[in-house]
Amino acid sequence: MKRFLDLADLERDAVLDLLALAARLQKHPEPQALAGKILGMVFFNPSLRTLASFQAGMARLGGTSFVVTPGQGTWKLEHRLGAIMDGDRAEHVREGIPVLASYCDAFGIRAFAEGTDLAFDLAETQFNAMAATVNKPLINLESAVNHPCQALADWKTMDELGVPQRGKFVLSWVKHPRPLPLAVPAATLHMAAMRGMDVTVLRPDGFALPDAIMEKARRAAAASGGSVSETTDRAAAMKGATVLYAKEWGSTRFYGDVEGDSTLRSQLGDWQVDERWFANADQDCRFMHCLPVRRNVAVADHVLDGPRSVVLHEAHNRMPAQMAVLHRLLANSN
Amino acid sequence: MKRFLDLADLERDAVLDLLALAARLQKHPEPQALAGKILGMVFFNPSLRTLASFQAGMARLGGTSFVVTPGQGTWKLEHRLGAIMDGDRAEHVREGIPVLASYCDAFGIRAFAEGTDLAFDLAETQFNAMAATVNKPLINLESAVNHPCQALADWKTMDELGVPQRGKFVLSWVKHPRPLPLAVPAATLHMAAMRGMDVTVLRPDGFALPDAIMEKARRAAAASGGSVSETTDRAAAMKGATVLYAKEWGSTRFYGDVEGDSTLRSQLGDWQVDERWFANADQDCRFMHCLPVRRNVAVADHVLDGPRSVVLHEAHNRMPAQMAVLHRLLANSN
Amino acid sequence: MKRFLDLADLERDAVLDLLALAARLQKHPEPQALAGKILGMVFFNPSLRTLASFQAGMARLGGTSFVVTPGQGTWKLEHRLGAIMDGDRAEHVREGIPVLASYCDAFGIRAFAEGTDLAFDLAETQFNAMAATVNKPLINLESAVNHPCQALADWKTMDELGVPQRGKFVLSWVKHPRPLPLAVPAATLHMAAMRGMDVTVLRPDGFALPDAIMEKARRAAAASGGSVSETTDRAAAMKGATVLYAKEWGSTRFYGDVEGDSTLRSQLGDWQVDERWFANADQDCRFMHCLPVRRNVAVADHVLDGPRSVVLHEAHNRMPAQMAVLHRLLANSN
Repeated sequence: MKRFLDLADLERDAVLDLLALAARLQKHPEPQALAGKILGMVFFNPSLRTLASFQAGMARLGGTSFVVTPGQGTWKLEHRLGAIMDGDRAEHVREGIPVLASYCDAFGIRAFAEGTDLAFDLAETQFNAMAATVNKPLINLESAVNHPCQALADWKTMDELGVPQRGKFVLSWVKHPRPLPLAVPAATLHMAAMRGMDVTVLRPDGFALPDAIMEKARRAAAASGGSVSETTDRAAAMKGATVLYAKEWGSTRFYGDVEGDSTLRSQLGDWQVDERWFANADQDCRFMHCLPVRRNVAVADHVLDGPRSVVLHEAHNRMPAQMAVLHRLLANSN
Repeated sequence: MKRFLDLADLERDAVLDLLALAARLQKHPEPQALAGKILGMVFFNPSLRTLASFQAGMARLGGTSFVVTPGQGTWKLEHRLGAIMDGDRAEHVREGIPVLASYCDAFGIRAFAEGTDLAFDLAETQFNAMAATVNKPLINLESAVNHPCQALADWKTMDELGVPQRGKFVLSWVKHPRPLPLAVPAATLHMAAMRGMDVTVLRPDGFALPDAIMEKARRAAAASGGSVSETTDRAAAMKGATVLYAKEWGSTRFYGDVEGDSTLRSQLGDWQVDERWFANADQDCRFMHCLPVRRNVAVADHVLDGPRSVVLHEAHNRMPAQMAVLHRLLANSN
Repeated sequence: MKRFLDLADLERDAVLDLLALAARLQKHPEPQALAGKILGMVFFNPSLRTLASFQAGMARLGGTSFVVTPGQGTWKLEHRLGAIMDGDRAEHVREGIPVLASYCDAFGIRAFAEGTDLAFDLAETQFNAMAATVNKPLINLESAVNHPCQALADWKTMDELGVPQRGKFVLSWVKHPRPLPLAVPAATLHMAAMRGMDVTVLRPDGFALPDAIMEKARRAAAASGGSVSETTDRAAAMKGATVLYAKEWGSTRFYGDVEGDSTLRSQLGDWQVDERWFANADQDCRFMHCLPVRRNVAVADHVLDGPRSVVLHEAHNRMPAQMAVLHRLLANSN
């Protein structure tokens, strides 16, 4: 494995191998496996779990890491090709990224969607332009429409909790003050489909996931024996659900149109998860969320603090899942 | 020892043991004692000494550390229970703190006083709510009314300087542009009382330390053979003093009332330490301060740059004192 | 070697030794050479290469590092002697710097020019005041008029590229929206002179490098067999050039006079490097720049992306060059 950019780049068996490696490293630590190895990470957007879990994960394997945050201690970086750089961005990613990558053994990039042009974001234009300048093992720390580290950790969490492979997985849109990117919904949908689950995307009108994302997930489902559907009907979606995975995202009908999104969003007051959502679900139905989550906006306190919630388990699994990725990318290399 | 949150949680002998361990580690380094161990730290407020000395201390024991600063590269975190999180705080400490703690072997939190409700701050409401979510060894990196790492380093400094156990320790209020928290005065008072010193709190009218803090210190003094008193009379306080420990704090009469505090504060122009303060002190009287200190506001340049000042010695001792804490919390654990 | 503050502090042979050590460490890594050693770095100004390459370099030698950025997670620091500190700067460098240095085995400081008083900056007043408080091996991470780490990396780059020792080295002023410091032009000029090259400083009227900098370089050239000259004539300068080193700096005629600088600067629209600059140069003439560089302001995309550009090579060499410095300062010390 040279890059970890999208779960879809891997065969299903390769994902299972990563998960097995993660479990093995938890049971049998290898505190020197990455001795002398250096992970560099650049964060164009805020991070809590990714920032901390990768640093901790590298350390637990004997390696080290450094973090660069453009605009905070470092120059703001320009992305646009051909830009006349007379503004506040002192350096271009065409220099900044390969320079940073040249100091380390593996590199990670976080760069959220621009959120104005859906086709631009779906094509991972910005991330791919940076990735093309890196000739080291590369990790996607969350891009415009992907977050493979989160997806891998969530898969691991479901395995550990005994969530059946063919269980019903409901990915539901929930409320948020602003339109958030499609990265986690897209990655989560794909992960659940690839795991072989019966996935239902539950979302209000105007928030359908883009066709390209749905089609890609359907192909994964076809290969794994799962299925993918979508609906606006909460009761139908939740009937028999074994997992409710809540996530916030922006209106795809009004992508890049803040006012249109806001008007639509303001009418969706009841898209906050509370216990009533689980009335027809499997009685052991789990509540999942990638975090950060806005309490009492996206989900009520009593669900997060109740027995269904496995959000801390998911977040913790970021570390062992990523340790497996780091191990595969870096162990036994020179 | 599972937590290091308050010097008062420890028996006096346990503090002496920590100080002995700190001295031993300085004389006989143990560069592999914490190999493979990870310290996570979250700073809700600025830091210079704590930030650097804990990172350096972990490294000197063979361990590693990571730092998270909410609002700088990481989401702003919400503290209020039951909050409807539709503002600028994207994540709640009820998720953020236990997630970060789950990646490491020991965890540290810095969270200053809110400064509006004295009872809320005296109860360490905010810090304790976070501490309750952490099931790892935990270190108080400065909370609303405590700073045990500073207190331990100061005790060590006095020992090294040969300051007599029964010496007269004057903790004096000094000028500052704004009301600062009670953490260091409270921790310093307690430390000096626990060490067995005759402690005098010298402060203007309106700046008395809260009864709860004074009473707690009096109990420590009773156990150690020391004493605690307070006065507004500088000459009386400084007579025979062996240590002048200067510190800034907000008016307790006008706690949370910026205007009231400011009016009172504006009349206290002569509460800046200069050499005249030492006229009746012991001739070897030391000047101590936890830093950061505002030169020529809290204390005159000639005192800081003169032979009485031991502020750099105190600051350096943060590292060995904390190394002893880390060693006790983490060495020989799994 | 106790300090690495200025290439001019070293004999030419000592620089050659450092370069040989850098090459040796690249060929024969010493992953434990600095085991247990700690580098502390304080950045008063933004950094990308220095920040990342020093952390990576320490890690590759088995050591660790910590970074402090005043104003970002740490107090803003006051530099002025005798200041009455009642503003937004909570701590003075007279405390902050020696305290940080006391936690580590080597220390680095980045502090750009103030840019108002040329004599103040040329004397390195600010950097030297801080350096005087540090009793550890000290590294200049870029000061008012120096950047020895960049200079050493650039020397190494030219050696690796086979740029002849007596080649013609053109240091040319190029456009930038604002007046930048003299650190890199001064250090680069000195480095090329010390290497023994025929150095031409090409700059518009009003941007002559200060006499003190030119004279110092001339002395270095005299000792190494090189030469130093200056001109405003681009065609004459570029004739036969083997290296074009582009750099932005502020008008020395209008030092600290933003309006005067701006007026002069606005008339210099054609000081952007493009391929036409190389018409009379050696056909293999290299394009060098220390980065960050503003594309299509200082230099056209086609030059940066073309075969002449060695800017990534230079940036990468920061790491091995600095590893040699760190090795010399710290290896075999206690």
